[in-house]
Amino acid sequence: MIDCGEGAQVHFRRSHLHFKRLNHIFISHLHGDHCFGLIGLISTLGLLGRTADLHIYAPNPLPELLKPQLAFFCDGLSYRVKIHPFSTRRSEILYEDRSLLIETVPLLHRMPCCGFIFREKATKYHLDPSAKEKYQLPLYAIHAIKAGEDYVMPSGEVIPNSALTLPMKPVRSYAYISDTAYKPDIVPRLKDIDCLYHEATFLHERLGRAVVTQHSTALQAGLIADAAGCKKLVIGHFSARYHDESVLLEESKTVFSNTELANEGMIINV
Amino acid sequence: MIDCGEGAQVHFRRSHLHFKRLNHIFISHLHGDHCFGLIGLISTLGLLGRTADLHIYAPNPLPELLKPQLAFFCDGLSYRVKIHPFSTRRSEILYEDRSLLIETVPLLHRMPCCGFIFREKATKYHLDPSAKEKYQLPLYAIHAIKAGEDYVMPSGEVIPNSALTLPMKPVRSYAYISDTAYKPDIVPRLKDIDCLYHEATFLHERLGRAVVTQHSTALQAGLIADAAGCKKLVIGHFSARYHDESVLLEESKTVFSNTELANEGMIINV
Repeated sequence: MIDCGEGAQVHFRRSHLHFKRLNHIFISHLHGDHCFGLIGLISTLGLLGRTADLHIYAPNPLPELLKPQLAFFCDGLSYRVKIHPFSTRRSEILYEDRSLLIETVPLLHRMPCCGFIFREKATKYHLDPSAKEKYQLPLYAIHAIKAGEDYVMPSGEVIPNSALTLPMKPVRSYAYISDTAYKPDIVPRLKDIDCLYHEATFLHERLGRAVVTQHSTALQAGLIADAAGCKKLVIGHFSARYHDESVLLEESKTVFSNTELANEGMIINV
Repeated sequence: MIDCGEGAQVHFRRSHLHFKRLNHIFISHLHGDHCFGLIGLISTLGLLGRTADLHIYAPNPLPELLKPQLAFFCDGLSYRVKIHPFSTRRSEILYEDRSLLIETVPLLHRMPCCGFIFREKATKYHLDPSAKEKYQLPLYAIHAIKAGEDYVMPSGEVIPNSALTLPMKPVRSYAYISDTAYKPDIVPRLKDIDCLYHEATFLHERLGRAVVTQHSTALQAGLIADAAGCKKLVIGHFSARYHDESVLLEESKTVFSNTELANEGMIINV
């Protein structure tokens, strides 16, 4: 879960997601609309009898703020809440396993704030069963081929790895750029991202307001996606002044055509 | 506002109520479903530029729990949040003005908990304009008549107050009995209440569970309303096990016929 505003647990349920599959929560910054739902969610997970650890990644001082609430409201909780504070000044790897890497992207907001990049890792090469037979591959060679190596036949002929393995599932990437002023220096970090979420609080005609409040305009979100060569851009965090959000979409599309408006409950295929 | 669970600010808006008219919040006890919405509501009122004081009445340790959150999330708030802790061991008057009196009712729950009684005060007697003329009432007598006194004519004849004043608007009363085990000693406090809200978490067949969790059954809620001679009973706080809440309604009605089920967004005329 990325960010956890008030009522997040209700929306989680409504989306037919399973609380048991929720193990890691990433909080971009400590404005209420990004973290006021944590205590209610933690409390509900306790009522449901959860036993698995819950990991929360957030800037300081979340541990200090949450701990007295946990001590009072969640006394005797059936599971452990592990808070991992991170620095918002430099990029960090927050999480890594066999198939996924999650890093922070320092942003520029009225308080310490980071975005997050989620990258799938390349899986091992899958051996093509027909190649195994065709080249009479010995067992000792298979491990090396799965690691990406070519195979040298007893005759000395080199069979390239691509002739021995099946095409890999492409690795996917998602970046979540939370509240931020226009910050073009993040572009190299977002290179070739499949799906970029970028905030777009205002139209560019209100650039002055965006600068003061350290938010972005829809045009700026589009410029970032275009410069980084992202495949898709989803914009959100619109000011309540825009009753018709399509004006923000149109503005972003002038520089990055594959833009979509974020919407409650929206499902995006990456 | 009585109690303030997560998302209360959203429901407040949906009910087309005005945040400006909200000045006093009464928290019955510090379980999350009764107070997790406070910080979000306080924060939103600040974003709306509120300047009037907001008074919160709650058992300890709410001030200790809320203050670090207020200091961090609501730094530079445009108005003051005044927290008034109250004892849950004895009844207290929390609020009183010209027309309203609000008192606590100590309850029996897994943590310190109170209910609240809201009573309108009798207004002054309104002089009947036709009596003023008929009896040629002198100015000096009018103040006494408005305070409820009879009028003695120069002839010595006594005109009863009821012949000089208009019938008063009846004073109304509402009691909110939050989470509690069956507690018949509250009955005298609820005497003749116009509208009683009483929790009814379980059917009486689950009395054992009600006793352990310190909640009430629908039957017990009905018994309290009946013994106190309340005019109407609204039951709520149903266990999620009851998909069809009408069974709870029927059970309460066996002892108190004028029972209604509480429902989100319900409006009750008192």
